[in-house]
Formats: sequence, C-alpha cells, structure tokens
Amino acid sequence: MPIVTLTSDFGLQDYYVSAMKGVILRTAPSVRIVDLCHTIPPQSIESGAFVLQHAAREFPPSTVHCAVIDPGVGTARRALAFTSRNHVWVGPDNGLLHFALQDVDGSVYAIDPDRLKTGRLSATFHGRDLFAPAAAHLANGRNLSDIGEPISDPQYLLSAPFQSRVDGVDGCVIHVDHFGNLVTNIPRSAIASLGEPLHAYVGTTHHAIELKHTYAEVDPNQLLALVGSADLVEISVNKGSARLRLDAEYGTSVRIEKQSV
Amino acid sequence: MPIVTLTSDFGLQDYYVSAMKGVILRTAPSVRIVDLCHTIPPQSIESGAFVLQHAAREFPPSTVHCAVIDPGVGTARRALAFTSRNHVWVGPDNGLLHFALQDVDGSVYAIDPDRLKTGRLSATFHGRDLFAPAAAHLANGRNLSDIGEPISDPQYLLSAPFQSRVDGVDGCVIHVDHFGNLVTNIPRSAIASLGEPLHAYVGTTHHAIELKHTYAEVDPNQLLALVGSADLVEISVNKGSARLRLDAEYGTSVRIEKQSV
Amino acid sequence: MPIVTLTSDFGLQDYYVSAMKGVILRTAPSVRIVDLCHTIPPQSIESGAFVLQHAAREFPPSTVHCAVIDPGVGTARRALAFTSRNHVWVGPDNGLLHFALQDVDGSVYAIDPDRLKTGRLSATFHGRDLFAPAAAHLANGRNLSDIGEPISDPQYLLSAPFQSRVDGVDGCVIHVDHFGNLVTNIPRSAIASLGEPLHAYVGTTHHAIELKHTYAEVDPNQLLALVGSADLVEISVNKGSARLRLDAEYGTSVRIEKQSV
Repeated sequence: MPIVTLTSDFGLQDYYVSAMKGVILRTAPSVRIVDLCHTIPPQSIESGAFVLQHAAREFPPSTVHCAVIDPGVGTARRALAFTSRNHVWVGPDNGLLHFALQDVDGSVYAIDPDRLKTGRLSATFHGRDLFAPAAAHLANGRNLSDIGEPISDPQYLLSAPFQSRVDGVDGCVIHVDHFGNLVTNIPRSAIASLGEPLHAYVGTTHHAIELKHTYAEVDPNQLLALVGSADLVEISVNKGSARLRLDAEYGTSVRIEKQSV
Repeated sequence: MPIVTLTSDFGLQDYYVSAMKGVILRTAPSVRIVDLCHTIPPQSIESGAFVLQHAAREFPPSTVHCAVIDPGVGTARRALAFTSRNHVWVGPDNGLLHFALQDVDGSVYAIDPDRLKTGRLSATFHGRDLFAPAAAHLANGRNLSDIGEPISDPQYLLSAPFQSRVDGVDGCVIHVDHFGNLVTNIPRSAIASLGEPLHAYVGTTHHAIELKHTYAEVDPNQLLALVGSADLVEISVNKGSARLRLDAEYGTSVRIEKQSV
Repeated sequence: MPIVTLTSDFGLQDYYVSAMKGVILRTAPSVRIVDLCHTIPPQSIESGAFVLQHAAREFPPSTVHCAVIDPGVGTARRALAFTSRNHVWVGPDNGLLHFALQDVDGSVYAIDPDRLKTGRLSATFHGRDLFAPAAAHLANGRNLSDIGEPISDPQYLLSAPFQSRVDGVDGCVIHVDHFGNLVTNIPRSAIASLGEPLHAYVGTTHHAIELKHTYAEVDPNQLLALVGSADLVEISVNKGSARLRLDAEYGTSVRIEKQSV
C-alpha cells in the first residue's frame, strides 16, 4: 500500500481536507493516506516547510508527500512534482518544498493540469483539483514525465541563516510549538565547537538562559535552552510555555554565547 | 476495503470519535475509516449538512457516510439509513442528510436499534451505540432492510433559498470557512445570465464588492467576490479574512447586482 | 492488519504526531494507525488516562495502545509495556496507563531503549524515539520480553475516589468535554441503591439539579444531571454548556443527594 501524506493550512472545520482524500481514494483506492498537519497558520509557507521537513523524513521510502499552502492559487504560479530522498513530492512552487528541493533525484517537473484529466480546475482550490490528483497518479506508479514538463528554476525559501561568531551564534525563532517551545534555526553542529557552559539570550533581553540537556535539569516553571528533537536549539520552560514567558514569536532573535569566566 | 466516513460535532478532545472508530473496527475489521470533519459547531445541523455535501461527493462509489450531529439524542427522533448517489448514508432524522435525501435510491429506512444487537443504548451517545454499529454492518454488506423499516417522511432542512430578481440575486451566508471566506447560497448558475460586471453587497452596507475570477485579481488585503470551489459565490479578502473585515457570520444577507452603467 | 492507537498531548500543529506515524509505518508497514486523541491538555496525565480508558475499551482484541503524555521525558522515569484486557499498552510510567494496569495479564515490562535499536534517543521526544518504535515492534508480534525487563512497581494515579454516604455520594469533576458537560467520578452503581428522585449540587452552590435520564427531559438551556455514556454522573445543560453556566472545572466537587420529602 503506497503512502500519501497531506500537509496544508486548510484547518479542520471545512470540507477541504476530506475532499482531497475523496479525490485520492477515487483515483488510487489502495493508497494509505496520512495527515501530516492541516493547522499550519494560513498562508504561512515557512511554518509549513518546517513541519513538512521534520515529519516527512520519518516516512518509509516511496512515500508521496502532497503539501498545499498556496496563497498564489489561481495565478500563474507553477505546481511542482519531483523525487528527493527516496520520496515523491507534490506542491506549489513557492518555497514550501525548499528542503526537499536541495537534494532532487532527476528533474523537477511543472505539473500540467490538462494531463491529469480531472475535468475541473477551480480558481481557489487546487488541493482538490490539481495536487491531490497528481499525488494519486504518482502513488499509482505513473512517471513524473507523464504529468508535467521539466523546469530548471524552482522557488526556494529566503530564510535568514544563522551566523556564527567567535564566541557564539546569532539566529532566530523559526517555529513556536504547541507547548510554547521556541525552536530556533541554530543547529546542534553550530554550537558544538563552542564548548560549555553556553547561555541563550532571546530578543533584546539581557537575561541569560542556561543551555541544558533535559527539561528536568531545571525546576518546574524555570527557563532553559536545549537541543530539541529537530536537532535545533530550543528555548523552553520546564512544564510551562516559553512563548508566554518571553512574549516571543516567529522571527524573534536568539543569541547563543559562550559564558565568559 | 469499504470506506466509512465520519462527520460530527464531537470535537477532538474527547473519547467520542475514537470510541466510534473502535466500534466500527470491532464489527468491520477491514473497513477504511476517513474523518470528514469533527469540528462542526455544536448542534449546528446546517453547517454539518454543508460540509458533508461538499466532501462526500468526492468519494468513490459504495462509500458509507456516517454523520452524527444529534441534538435530539435520547428523544424519539429516528435514525436513518438509505442509499443515494451510489453512496450509503447513516445519520439522525433531523435534516443533516438533506442533500443526499433529494436523490434517494429505493427507500429511506428508520434503523431499529434492537436489530443491531449491540447490547447497549446510552441516552447520550448514539454515535457509539447506534450509528457506528449501523454503518459498520452496512459496510459489511448487510441490507438496509436487515437493520430497519422503510419510512416515508424523513426530515429536510428548512433553509432560506436564494431569490433571483431582474438585475440581481438575494441570498445569504451559509458557511464561514477557516480562512474567513463567506460562502453564500448563491450558485454560479444563478448569476450566469446576469452578465458582467457584477457587484456584491454584504449585510446592510452599501460598499460594492467586485465579482472577480481569482483572488489575485485584487491586491492583498482587498475585498473581492468570486465563485468558489463549491460553485457558490463567496466573499473573500486576498490573503486575509472577509469574516474579520466585514464582521459577517452565518445568515448575513448577501446581494448580487448588475452594475448600472 | 494490527491496530496501533495513538494518544498524546502533542496537539495538531507540529510534526510530533506525524513523526511518530512515520516511525511506526517504517517499522511495521502493515499496521493500521488510529488517533485516539492528541489534544489532551499539556502534561495532563489524568485527562489522558480518562480519554484513553473510555476510547480504548471499544477496540478489538490485540490492539496496541501507544500513549505519550510525558512531562518526565529525559529523566529516569521508566517506559512501560504490558498486556491487559486483550490489548497491548505502551506508555510512560507516570499513571497514564492506570486503568489498564489494574488488570495486567503477565508482567509489566520496563522498555530498554537499547533493545529497540533505533539509533537515537533525544532528550525531549520519546514519542518518536522510544514509544512509537516499541509499539511498532509489539504490533509486529515481538514479545514483551524482547524489548524490556519485568518490573513490580508501576506508578498508579492518585485520584480522589468518590465517597458514599447514607443519603448520597460525594465526588468531583474528572473531565470537562467539548460540549461543556461536567463528567464526575460517580458511577451509576454508586447511586443505584439511593432510589429516586436525586439531586446534584456542584461546588459550593445550593442550587439543586435534578437527575434525569435524557437531555430532552428538561427545556433547552436548562441544567440537568444524568448518567452519561461513560456510566458516570454528568452535569449538563440541554443544548448548552454546563461548564459556562456553572463556571466549573476539573476538580470541582459534586454532591448527589436523595431528595428529602
């Protein structure tokens, strides 16, 4: 049973996600559909790319990932399909598939809606009318070249990278999770050579937050920094919410510094 | 693998939806369960009927749709099962299945709980004790006549229809989606003969909103009207929320008018 | 197809739940995954135990239940696996599996992460790195003794029990559901011998709420008490929310009294 995962900003209160599932099951009856996430903030391509990256990599080979965060629906923005890391990827050409695009196997294709023969293409819902049919066809084993034409210039995300300095790293918050943990763009590898102890500073505050290894190294309701499950530095409160404590959000700057002795 | 879809107002925080799934899998182990929507506003039969209509139609033949928005649970309200549009439908007799009832194949049956032999019928949770077992039995191939008796007077929704006038159409908002789009009860066919350009007026305001074909025909944060993916006129804000902009809600009147030259 | 159910406080906006699904499908490709609930309030072991108890019991024999509400992640708290009531249970040793622990078949095992051979064990996400792999292996038919060692002292919940008196029962609210119903810890059996009529008193108020059999025995927006689908006394408002009406929450005391004549 091939797997098709779905990621979107459609939320859970409408017919949008389930209409996509109906279309997929009509075209590829034996497919197993797995929801990655449908509560990405509306039109937030960066958040969608982050969740997709860290969830998708856990899936078995040949999984088809269909992602629809699509503020350009109805315009001339292209629809992409390609293979990367033994998975198949389908989604709008707007940066959402940034991470998979960095390791493409073969060509990136622009999907031609006419070749999907769905008989409809609304101006507002390409999840149902274009991306779901394309994902279903690819899960059925059709070739990328059957549904589109190769292109050479897919869109990437324009994210601020982290910056290494002699005694620290400058980065920012790229995801705020359900528990209020602030996930930064600073990877474990960027701080490995700094040694210990390290402190984090969030936004413009001068409050030093110690880098620990587990939540339990501080008391409940105390701030800490640690390398989280995405292998990125996170700012957390043990059994609490760093988002609420620090009033931080997507984009807030975070600085890691070697403690001066 | 037969498909059973589930629609309810049970939300996602309780054991209600998953208890239904357990009951179905106990009775029909090979069934594929698909959630249509569980965040219909509590007891909102109209919203449930709308989401069900537009999601269910995408599914393959023989799908069983089990819908439970059931403010009358515990009263003498009947439980329905019938075939319509090559699908099987199960739900309370309160208008929730309105659209499927307009095209019934054969008879509508009132389910007899005793024939389901479940051994329990709580006063508050017929999703688990009646509708899920009925859907599972029908997915297993049992006949409608095995689980109920034909009736002749199922309940329909009493919704206000749209009204066509010489130079326009009067309707109202029947659904507000996750993005804040205001979906009206005015179909594409009702405005087709009016020609262009057309303007929409929401509630008691005199602000004319132009009817366009795609979001991108207006600037970000600008209002527009268009025919959406349900083939109904919608009021939207490009990359924003018409609900927030216009303070509109379910039932707000919407008027489409031919622009006088 | 073996069934693995998932219960957590991970919410729906992150990669946490879907990463667990990817891990399970990578290890046990034929497994059927069913979400029990992922919107348990963060770190609320009691709420998780309640939802798990009432959903899990509906599932067919051999179902594997994997539950992760895990405020002690990264500490020395053990990870449990055992068989109870013909189901297999996997989760942290913190009381979450309280109800299943009361009827264990064989020994309770502490999972040894090294035996799962996953190659990673983050400090913050044992759902992905320990519990999901363990559940997948058990769904594949591996023995409990393959993945851990027997222990004799699992943790239970320390919940306040209800108290029976001559003319009544004292209890408290143990769950507030999506509709605002207040579910108490007072079972049907505890009030059966009291006779009728019975009244409920919530918190410190002296307002007597009549015990009925169905919502419809009172007018819309009126308070009532009844025995709900979990066989526990609930306080409800017909077509409304008892939580909002009474400003009650988890832990609020509830008293059932035989009406004096």
